[in-house]
Amino acid sequence: MGLLGAIEAGGTKFVVAVADQDYNIVERAAFPTLNGEKTLDQVIAFFDQFEDIDAIGIAAFGPIDIVTGSRTYGHVLDTPKTGWSGYNFLGRMKAWRDIPYYWTTDVNGAGWAEFKTGAAKDVDNMVYLTVGTGVGAGIVSSGHLVSGYGHPEAGHIFLQKHPEDNYAGHCPFHGDNCLEGLAAGPAIEERWGTSAKGIADDDIAWKIEAFYLAQAALDYTMILRPDKIVFGGGVPHREILFPLMRESFAEQMSDYLNVPDLDEYIVPVANGDNAGILGCFYLAKTLVK
Amino acid sequence: MGLLGAIEAGGTKFVVAVADQDYNIVERAAFPTLNGEKTLDQVIAFFDQFEDIDAIGIAAFGPIDIVTGSRTYGHVLDTPKTGWSGYNFLGRMKAWRDIPYYWTTDVNGAGWAEFKTGAAKDVDNMVYLTVGTGVGAGIVSSGHLVSGYGHPEAGHIFLQKHPEDNYAGHCPFHGDNCLEGLAAGPAIEERWGTSAKGIADDDIAWKIEAFYLAQAALDYTMILRPDKIVFGGGVPHREILFPLMRESFAEQMSDYLNVPDLDEYIVPVANGDNAGILGCFYLAKTLVK
Ligand SMILES: Nc1ncnc2c1ncn2[C@@H]1O[C@H](COP(=O)(O)OP(=O)(O)O)[C@@H](O)[C@H]1O
Ligand SMILES: Nc1ncnc2c1ncn2[C@@H]1O[C@H](COP(=O)(O)OP(=O)(O)O)[C@@H](O)[C@H]1O
Ligand SMILES: [Zn+2]
Ligand SMILES: [Zn+2]
Repeated sequence: MGLLGAIEAGGTKFVVAVADQDYNIVERAAFPTLNGEKTLDQVIAFFDQFEDIDAIGIAAFGPIDIVTGSRTYGHVLDTPKTGWSGYNFLGRMKAWRDIPYYWTTDVNGAGWAEFKTGAAKDVDNMVYLTVGTGVGAGIVSSGHLVSGYGHPEAGHIFLQKHPEDNYAGHCPFHGDNCLEGLAAGPAIEERWGTSAKGIADDDIAWKIEAFYLAQAALDYTMILRPDKIVFGGGVPHREILFPLMRESFAEQMSDYLNVPDLDEYIVPVANGDNAGILGCFYLAKTLVK
Repeated sequence: MGLLGAIEAGGTKFVVAVADQDYNIVERAAFPTLNGEKTLDQVIAFFDQFEDIDAIGIAAFGPIDIVTGSRTYGHVLDTPKTGWSGYNFLGRMKAWRDIPYYWTTDVNGAGWAEFKTGAAKDVDNMVYLTVGTGVGAGIVSSGHLVSGYGHPEAGHIFLQKHPEDNYAGHCPFHGDNCLEGLAAGPAIEERWGTSAKGIADDDIAWKIEAFYLAQAALDYTMILRPDKIVFGGGVPHREILFPLMRESFAEQMSDYLNVPDLDEYIVPVANGDNAGILGCFYLAKTLVK
């Protein structure tokens, strides 16, 4: 048996690593994200050190084309990031070495790690939501990552505004209509004119934030009936959000649906910063016979 | 090979039928829904006529417990309908004859028929939404019916109100917060104080209705990325809703996501009134070896 490879392709940082089949990391490197071609040069220089790689999992910032059979499968789609729109990420990797690749989104990578060995390891259905610079989701239903005509963009569902919130929203497409426009880190910072980290726990900012995240959790619940909703990313580092989200969820749901105990239902990630890389290894492993 | 059985268990009417393995209906009956025990008496009297039934598909009005392994699996859950709360529907059937049963919701039954041979027969991912007395959804992701801690209740996702709508909503749990409270048949009739069938095509009523259904379609799109969204039930008999929904969908989506051509994406059912029974047969067939 050879090694497993992982590429956690973030918008600001790339992390690459190889591990043995038991997920013990053999080597790891990180570098800032440049344009597509230059970044992939570094990725390939890293993996070139290892002769015997069985498969590589790639979890990439999006939007990306993950629809098998599509003409642009494996490409990065339209993005404001310089030197990435239309870049044939997977094609470049395959041209380098023709081994199996698991090609998916960054949130699917981290979500899959939470599903396999993290906060959702004991369930079959989960939503992993990351709330940072943007909001994104990796969704598992009956043990499978949900995707269809493309990957989920569950950060852009429409929400009702909190009655005390006058903020105009920051989604370039949906303004204050969508979750990301109202509740991502930059929205918090623009709304209150200060860094999110500096806002006190008892500030109304977190009540409003919890209201939006809970309303999103409610919509995911109605549509998917997950066993667990796992929150990752920078914003949920704010621990007070968890009791506030559970309270708001119960209030908005208004006893309509049977859900698991909220302390077990609305939970933080368990894998921490390693989730992305771990998820890539787990996904790569599914390709190894 | 024996026969296939179907039970379309609606809140106002039950339809039962048997068919051969090629889905040719051998016999069919319908009767009004009484309480659980009395209705099942009639169901059983019907199937007693047939010795050789391989499996029966049951598509039941909800909420019902469809979680395998649950203590109340096969039961009807809390419902305002007299004589049904807690009724052990599946248990009664199994006590009658211990054959395989596919036990699911009415919307999963009809949705599955649309998926197999109806409007969504050529795709792998779809949402079937029925808009009638209530709003419910049957969801297929990668070929599988979505369920988890329970079945979807996608009629109760939260929506933003149309700026010209002052209606207080009719969902007993969520008032004017949710899709069903704003857009089911009774909401239309209460809002405008007249029968939905009597409202003219060019009335603003349909613009508002289309706005809500399109917003729901947008949320399903963001979360599930279906290939098709199929609308059934009484309200979408109003054909003008389809162009209005497509227009509103495009406007609210604001070019964010790549979706199929809207004329192919937001479509009416193809199976018509037979969908429920057909779906039961198709589901029963999955249990026949
Ligand atoms: N303790 C905290 N409380 C509230 N917000 C925080 C906290 N720590 C980080 N954040 C916010 O999280 C966001 C960054 O999230 P992160 O997931 O690290 O970024 P990215 O999405 O770019 O990977 C920033 O907006 C930051 O203000
Ligand atoms: N052509 C039509 N235009 C608009 N609404 C209609 C039309 N036909 C039926 N409806 C509405 O559909 C609703 C009934 O939907 P239906 O699916 O038949 O009921 P149920 O959900 O009880 O099975 C009623 O509110 C009725 O007013
Ligand atoms: Zn948005
Ligand atoms: Zn509701």
